[in-house]
Amino acid sequence: MTNKLWQTAASVQLHPTIENYTVGDDHVLDQKLMGYDITASKAHAQMLESVGLLTMSEANELTDALDTLQKLWEKGEFKIQKHQEDGHTAIEQYLTEKLGDTGKKIHTVRSRNDQALVMMRLYLKDNLQKVGLQISQVATALEKAAIKSGKTPMPGYTHTQKAMPTTVATWLMAYADGFKDAKKLLDSTLEIIDQNPLGSAAGFGSSLPINKAHTTKTLGFSKTQDNPMYCGISRGLFELLAVQSLNSAMILSGKFAADLLMFTTQEFNFFSLPDSFTTGSSIMPHKHNYDVLEIMRGQAHMFGPLVQQLNAVVVGIGSGYHRDLQLTKKVTLEAFDTASSTLESWSLLSAI
Amino acid sequence: MTNKLWQTAASVQLHPTIENYTVGDDHVLDQKLMGYDITASKAHAQMLESVGLLTMSEANELTDALDTLQKLWEKGEFKIQKHQEDGHTAIEQYLTEKLGDTGKKIHTVRSRNDQALVMMRLYLKDNLQKVGLQISQVATALEKAAIKSGKTPMPGYTHTQKAMPTTVATWLMAYADGFKDAKKLLDSTLEIIDQNPLGSAAGFGSSLPINKAHTTKTLGFSKTQDNPMYCGISRGLFELLAVQSLNSAMILSGKFAADLLMFTTQEFNFFSLPDSFTTGSSIMPHKHNYDVLEIMRGQAHMFGPLVQQLNAVVVGIGSGYHRDLQLTKKVTLEAFDTASSTLESWSLLSAI
Amino acid sequence: MTNKLWQTAASVQLHPTIENYTVGDDHVLDQKLMGYDITASKAHAQMLESVGLLTMSEANELTDALDTLQKLWEKGEFKIQKHQEDGHTAIEQYLTEKLGDTGKKIHTVRSRNDQALVMMRLYLKDNLQKVGLQISQVATALEKAAIKSGKTPMPGYTHTQKAMPTTVATWLMAYADGFKDAKKLLDSTLEIIDQNPLGSAAGFGSSLPINKAHTTKTLGFSKTQDNPMYCGISRGLFELLAVQSLNSAMILSGKFAADLLMFTTQEFNFFSLPDSFTTGSSIMPHKHNYDVLEIMRGQAHMFGPLVQQLNAVVVGIGSGYHRDLQLTKKVTLEAFDTASSTLESWSLLSAI
Amino acid sequence: MTNKLWQTAASVQLHPTIENYTVGDDHVLDQKLMGYDITASKAHAQMLESVGLLTMSEANELTDALDTLQKLWEKGEFKIQKHQEDGHTAIEQYLTEKLGDTGKKIHTVRSRNDQALVMMRLYLKDNLQKVGLQISQVATALEKAAIKSGKTPMPGYTHTQKAMPTTVATWLMAYADGFKDAKKLLDSTLEIIDQNPLGSAAGFGSSLPINKAHTTKTLGFSKTQDNPMYCGISRGLFELLAVQSLNSAMILSGKFAADLLMFTTQEFNFFSLPDSFTTGSSIMPHKHNYDVLEIMRGQAHMFGPLVQQLNAVVVGIGSGYHRDLQLTKKVTLEAFDTASSTLESWSLLSAI
Repeated sequence: MTNKLWQTAASVQLHPTIENYTVGDDHVLDQKLMGYDITASKAHAQMLESVGLLTMSEANELTDALDTLQKLWEKGEFKIQKHQEDGHTAIEQYLTEKLGDTGKKIHTVRSRNDQALVMMRLYLKDNLQKVGLQISQVATALEKAAIKSGKTPMPGYTHTQKAMPTTVATWLMAYADGFKDAKKLLDSTLEIIDQNPLGSAAGFGSSLPINKAHTTKTLGFSKTQDNPMYCGISRGLFELLAVQSLNSAMILSGKFAADLLMFTTQEFNFFSLPDSFTTGSSIMPHKHNYDVLEIMRGQAHMFGPLVQQLNAVVVGIGSGYHRDLQLTKKVTLEAFDTASSTLESWSLLSAI
Repeated sequence: MTNKLWQTAASVQLHPTIENYTVGDDHVLDQKLMGYDITASKAHAQMLESVGLLTMSEANELTDALDTLQKLWEKGEFKIQKHQEDGHTAIEQYLTEKLGDTGKKIHTVRSRNDQALVMMRLYLKDNLQKVGLQISQVATALEKAAIKSGKTPMPGYTHTQKAMPTTVATWLMAYADGFKDAKKLLDSTLEIIDQNPLGSAAGFGSSLPINKAHTTKTLGFSKTQDNPMYCGISRGLFELLAVQSLNSAMILSGKFAADLLMFTTQEFNFFSLPDSFTTGSSIMPHKHNYDVLEIMRGQAHMFGPLVQQLNAVVVGIGSGYHRDLQLTKKVTLEAFDTASSTLESWSLLSAI
Repeated sequence: MTNKLWQTAASVQLHPTIENYTVGDDHVLDQKLMGYDITASKAHAQMLESVGLLTMSEANELTDALDTLQKLWEKGEFKIQKHQEDGHTAIEQYLTEKLGDTGKKIHTVRSRNDQALVMMRLYLKDNLQKVGLQISQVATALEKAAIKSGKTPMPGYTHTQKAMPTTVATWLMAYADGFKDAKKLLDSTLEIIDQNPLGSAAGFGSSLPINKAHTTKTLGFSKTQDNPMYCGISRGLFELLAVQSLNSAMILSGKFAADLLMFTTQEFNFFSLPDSFTTGSSIMPHKHNYDVLEIMRGQAHMFGPLVQQLNAVVVGIGSGYHRDLQLTKKVTLEAFDTASSTLESWSLLSAI
Repeated sequence: MTNKLWQTAASVQLHPTIENYTVGDDHVLDQKLMGYDITASKAHAQMLESVGLLTMSEANELTDALDTLQKLWEKGEFKIQKHQEDGHTAIEQYLTEKLGDTGKKIHTVRSRNDQALVMMRLYLKDNLQKVGLQISQVATALEKAAIKSGKTPMPGYTHTQKAMPTTVATWLMAYADGFKDAKKLLDSTLEIIDQNPLGSAAGFGSSLPINKAHTTKTLGFSKTQDNPMYCGISRGLFELLAVQSLNSAMILSGKFAADLLMFTTQEFNFFSLPDSFTTGSSIMPHKHNYDVLEIMRGQAHMFGPLVQQLNAVVVGIGSGYHRDLQLTKKVTLEAFDTASSTLESWSLLSAI
């Protein structure tokens, strides 16, 4: 009914502006994530061999080449090129360059979307565990500080007005309890997302006789995510679940920073931090600034909207792959980096 | 150093504009929540009796009066007055009016903050269970619809372009799997927040010999939240944890609505809904509008920022009670109502 | 290609659960907004007469009936019924009941969407002006307080640590300057949205010879919004522009509340507010709680995500009417109410 | 009353973890922004000369060195070192290295906060103008496309169902009108923030006889921001105003992308884009994927929460400088980059 207003003759190359816009900084992000992709690629090669889609010698060649690539990458000697767009392509090009036709066979029953899914899933699992450990360390440090403080009294405040007496230990232990509960949320989220998506192919499975249980076992997943369309739907959604599970620790950090920024004013003067945690002023030598607490407070406030970015990008797109999902990668990495560096600083502070 | 610029003579009454601003619609919200407060009040009275702070006859009088109040409230015959500000005051005034000095004793070792904390905790537990059940019902309805659809084929889409063949059953089961995982998140969140805060008094505990374990048992909590300052910190934070656990179901609803709104266009024409689920147009009698899907999509998009309201209000305030926390009540109720009514509509849709 | 899985026999009535879900509390919101709809309906009737689509006597009958309805509504004697869904229907039913066939003619070249658009546009204009006036009042009150404070010194803080001397007047005037700039943003937003959408009919205009310039003049719009599809696109979008223009005043309120909550602690003790602005504690008679500042802080923190709700619901839906847009009404009213009540309390505070 | 629990002996160096956490990637961001800082530094030197705080020859030496630095920076030959933390320090160190004591004099009556304020203000002005121009270009391109489409009919949709006939031109012009209004919002925001903050020193002004009007004129600001505490309060707030003014263009982009993603499905098939705007599939050669539209949609959805990050970080901190404000820089740059690249792609699309 309607004329194809914009239809024009085919041109071979993607317009460079459009290419830049769609690719974004994917190759930079994948530079950090490549290890997970290599690990999953090895598992994929071994699975292909197990079902007869690769010969033993092909699988060994691929595994060896991937091991070499892993070492190069760890030493910083392998760089994804911008024209490769992402790490998935870079790995396949590396294998093809090294092994010729055997290299190409890694692509059997696998799409870039498949690679992205399993790479991020391994990233999420790994990082939920790492951040979970950091949360436990903060809780332990707070408990030690609480014990060290003995019965030191402290006023309890309601409405920011002195209300009832309490102790430094009660105050510190309140946060320790909070961090312990925060850890539980990470653990249960980890349990939910611990599902192997590898094998969803282009999002609708494959008629070839692959064995998802094989990669599930090799990669250490507790469960196979069977339905290929659910694999697709879970992209972005599982990132959101993982990232929102960090909310609790970030909120506690925001609250503790708010407490400390008040308690370290000259007017309250309950606590001070050592000089190695404060910045000074060239004009006012006796002034100690708690920049670290301010950055914690700021990061805590910005964390919710960061999570909301993930939410916003996934909620409106239906099933099946959409390129929008690529945007979730950057936000996820930023969220984990923020949480991790915030907790690392907390551990130091709490351990003083 | 600085003059008290604004200090003026004391006046007895809170300025009515300020009163309206601070109280907001708390009394309207508490009208819905009162049942939980009454239940907790009964448990509190029994605990006070168990430690000798009330006589057996006082405890019985209080329990009986609270039972009567419960029935009045259930029949809609008890209304919180605006001047009472909230349900906590309304309950204590009711008891005092009925029982005189005995009525006042319910306030022993208890603050309004204490009441608000335990009331909302019971609300959260109850509603996580209810919404969890609804999620399971949607999953079951989707599974039944999947079975009913047999091997009906459907094109699979990537980039909103036809890609590979799939089946209606695969598509429906993808969402069913998602809802089952969504349920797990609610369950584990419920486990985390299942802690009895009653007894934190004004937020710093009490020197009187109360027995928190008693109310923990009576009210069916799995654990006592011992540290009174953690009780305070968890106000708003636990609401956030509960509400963000609903995110997953809302995102799946948003995605399913996006799918269906495309699949029900005249151009795609995969599905249609019965007339009892569509609205028409007086001008165009053959037009069927899927308003219900649009409201679902809209509610799903608005849900993330709603959760973010909770986040924003709790992240910046330190330990100890702050009046800002009162604002979390409205958002929490709105979030549960939205999720519940969305899932109720889904159940109907999926069951067709 | 695909079977219509869910197609069933037609049923006459919309399922009550679906009806409740889609209608929501629209009739409650419209109860507040009806005045704008009545005003626009009168302008519409007069325009129809001007182009010969109504006779003079029909237009007069409609105008008189609408005047009567306006008075009833102002006295609280006209209530929109839930089954009417919204005020648009209620008005047309009232006119039909009173005037028979003449009443029905108000619907000529007009849809409910048309009514909703112009009603909200008038609401936005009116409320941007009202809130703008409140912002100016706060600025004036702050200026007066600054003058009153003379040269009263105050420490200036950086990093919440005493840094350099300043004065109370400098501090107060900083906020006054901010409020004056906030007012400018409201004014320029008002200028942008001051466009008459009435006449877009169902969103694609009409072939009948209506005269949009006529209603533009009658209703006091500075411009006609000619393109009917732009009228549709602007629904929700103009609400967002209006609401986000309030951000500035809310952020200043949040900052001022943060300052005051610190400056009124017993430790800082720079200022105190009169008893009519504070709440006390039954246990601690000398304690003064600045609940009003805490509610301001809380509302300021929640305002951004509230605006984001509007953003989220409009950004993903394409051109043409979608029912999701109905959800923008509630958020818009809540945002203006919040800003208005916050500024009203500020005016009182600043004027002390 | 309370012991200083954490007070320990002074140590000279800031702990490297804390340093990394607080500095973040500030030096990377400043590498892009340095030009504005250099420009403002020249204006500052000239102002100091005009009031006798520098000699003519000192001012000339500084100006010449800054000109040289500008050229080095433009050629990519000047890199801010991580240990310098930011560009402000890097500039002052460069001047001191080149000019000795004269170089140090650039710091007269100026703080890093002062530098950051004026640098970002110049950035905001420059980029509001650039993005404003891009918005106009999109509007023009849409108008041309509308004219080119003549009377090509297109169905108008309500509820994503065919409703009334319209034309391609009406549809395109609706967006053109929207972009023209979006431009107005940028212009009026630019007018509001066009205020020179330079001279606020550490946030509380200076007793030295500086002449803010001089730098206002040199730097092309339309107004001096007199109150030094308002300068401080406007940091972050003006960034927010600028960034939220881009919302309108991003929402229109999101809506247009939503329209096009539906209209370019094989089922609707109203439009297609040339191959230079689409990506293909190695498996399905006839498939054309509109990745560019998906990235636009995704960026549009993520933009609101990005703005909200700014809001969240500024709303809760009172007057005076806080280190949290440093975090607003990254978000601001990301927002402008996103809007700019999105509009650049739109221009190309609309011009086809």
